[in-house]
Amino acid sequence: MSANVTISEAAVWLAEQNNFLIISHRRPDGDTLGSAAALAQGLREAGKTAFVLLNPEVTPRYAPFVEDYWAPDDYKPESIIAVDTASVDLFTDNAGVYKDAVSLCIDHHASNSLYGAINCIDADRATCGEIIFDILMALSDSVSSLTAERLYVALSTDTGCFSFGNTTADTLSVAARLVEYGAPNRILNKKLFRTKTRGRIKIEGMLASGMEFHFDGKAAIATITREMMESAGACEDDMDDIAAIAGSVEGVGVGITIREMSSAIDWKVSVRSMLPYDAHAICLRFDGGGHKMAAGCTLKKPIDEVKAALLEVLPDYLNF
Amino acid sequence: MSANVTISEAAVWLAEQNNFLIISHRRPDGDTLGSAAALAQGLREAGKTAFVLLNPEVTPRYAPFVEDYWAPDDYKPESIIAVDTASVDLFTDNAGVYKDAVSLCIDHHASNSLYGAINCIDADRATCGEIIFDILMALSDSVSSLTAERLYVALSTDTGCFSFGNTTADTLSVAARLVEYGAPNRILNKKLFRTKTRGRIKIEGMLASGMEFHFDGKAAIATITREMMESAGACEDDMDDIAAIAGSVEGVGVGITIREMSSAIDWKVSVRSMLPYDAHAICLRFDGGGHKMAAGCTLKKPIDEVKAALLEVLPDYLNF
Repeated sequence: MSANVTISEAAVWLAEQNNFLIISHRRPDGDTLGSAAALAQGLREAGKTAFVLLNPEVTPRYAPFVEDYWAPDDYKPESIIAVDTASVDLFTDNAGVYKDAVSLCIDHHASNSLYGAINCIDADRATCGEIIFDILMALSDSVSSLTAERLYVALSTDTGCFSFGNTTADTLSVAARLVEYGAPNRILNKKLFRTKTRGRIKIEGMLASGMEFHFDGKAAIATITREMMESAGACEDDMDDIAAIAGSVEGVGVGITIREMSSAIDWKVSVRSMLPYDAHAICLRFDGGGHKMAAGCTLKKPIDEVKAALLEVLPDYLNF
Repeated sequence: MSANVTISEAAVWLAEQNNFLIISHRRPDGDTLGSAAALAQGLREAGKTAFVLLNPEVTPRYAPFVEDYWAPDDYKPESIIAVDTASVDLFTDNAGVYKDAVSLCIDHHASNSLYGAINCIDADRATCGEIIFDILMALSDSVSSLTAERLYVALSTDTGCFSFGNTTADTLSVAARLVEYGAPNRILNKKLFRTKTRGRIKIEGMLASGMEFHFDGKAAIATITREMMESAGACEDDMDDIAAIAGSVEGVGVGITIREMSSAIDWKVSVRSMLPYDAHAICLRFDGGGHKMAAGCTLKKPIDEVKAALLEVLPDYLNF
């Protein structure tokens, strides 16, 4: 029940099936939604019926690229495809009925649990969009500008416009093909990477102005209160990747962003580190966790005590 | 004296010559220095003697990529090449003696004055580095990882890590090849695009916190005083592309950054606009100029009067 298939085998399978429903993951990002929309568009151009299952967590940032493909309530799919989704645990609630019914799983996560009847997984790819591109090329020998646009959203957002460490020669090469096929990279880049809301600009300004440096500048601590967000006019969408800022300061090995949640004694701590510093180990001390370079934890006490607790354990993780 | 040559003709010419000196432009950026260093490296690997003329204006950001190629004082070049330099007016002072002696000019500026004995110009390329790549491939059929690294610096910095509007399919395609040839894009991106100095973070914070919005948010005005820079610990290198911030706010058509120069009655005004708004036309009103989307002017009066003068003329350029 978990056969792995090649790109061309996946394309052959798609050519044989019809009435597709495509599933994206919880807390959807540009890769899962761009991949889903592109696959739906590409399948339609190949003469198929294809829809994307409504993702109830879609944000305004990505909705414009996928909302035209949402499946109608009465849609009766025959073939279920999940994209960029490592496990059925990441299915949104409305996708729960399809947990045991996935026909084809397309993903780039090494941790993929191979829950599809067939699975097309390539963990060497930076983005799921690259795999979708290869499959659609194998299916139809070209992609339309509409498909290319959605795939460009997938590739560019998952790699920070090709600046993250995951970006490979393949990513850049596929991006080049997408632009050749008409992906409007100029417009998309401006919208996705070179525009900030007024709320975001203001909250970044406050965060930067108030950033504290400790331990010879090896640690940076930034605080975001609910009052700051209100005063900045910032909403949740404005907080995307905000924790990266403290970690991006030259010389900083550990960047910590402390954000007020439901009350003044409820703080979400996000830690970003540069190797060899270990964000995960720091957060473990407070019953949190994550990856080596990005982790988090929650502390339920006044902000002064939160900072004091962090400053007390930090020296254990700053000396090499 | 101004014959245009193709990529392969330029490569043939390089193969026939020796003892090269490569010239970069004033206020050097990553494209001119990366192109110069890559060309020197590529020529050396082809068995030639090649140096880059010291650029006295090189900044710490780019010095590490080019300083190994600076020509010794007693170097006697036979063939002078200028890269990414539209006119001899952009030569640094120490390059003045070569103004009438340029053998080959390699550039991507449409405005190039064709001052070389032969000129290899392609204004359709986003960066000069792409042209250098093609020439070196024509010369040697491959590039080394050292050459690829320097060319990656050229391509990535001139396109904002492939996010600016000038980025083409060619840029992405050449970038993919460079990563294949061993350009360490992960390390370079972290250093060039994902790290900010503490001074930069602080000055960005102050700039954002103090940003004013006018005319229904269509115009943003940010001010940077010398006192702010001092308090932020920011230096000139920290101010790179700082004017882009005011122009990057959602809904803003005209982003204006006013920076104190030698005194409190000497302000450099940088205007960034989104089409159809015309930065150049606005700056023309104050005897400045530039491009349609990026222009500048200087106003010699107290800051309140500078702002008042700008706010008075802005309505003429905001209504469509």
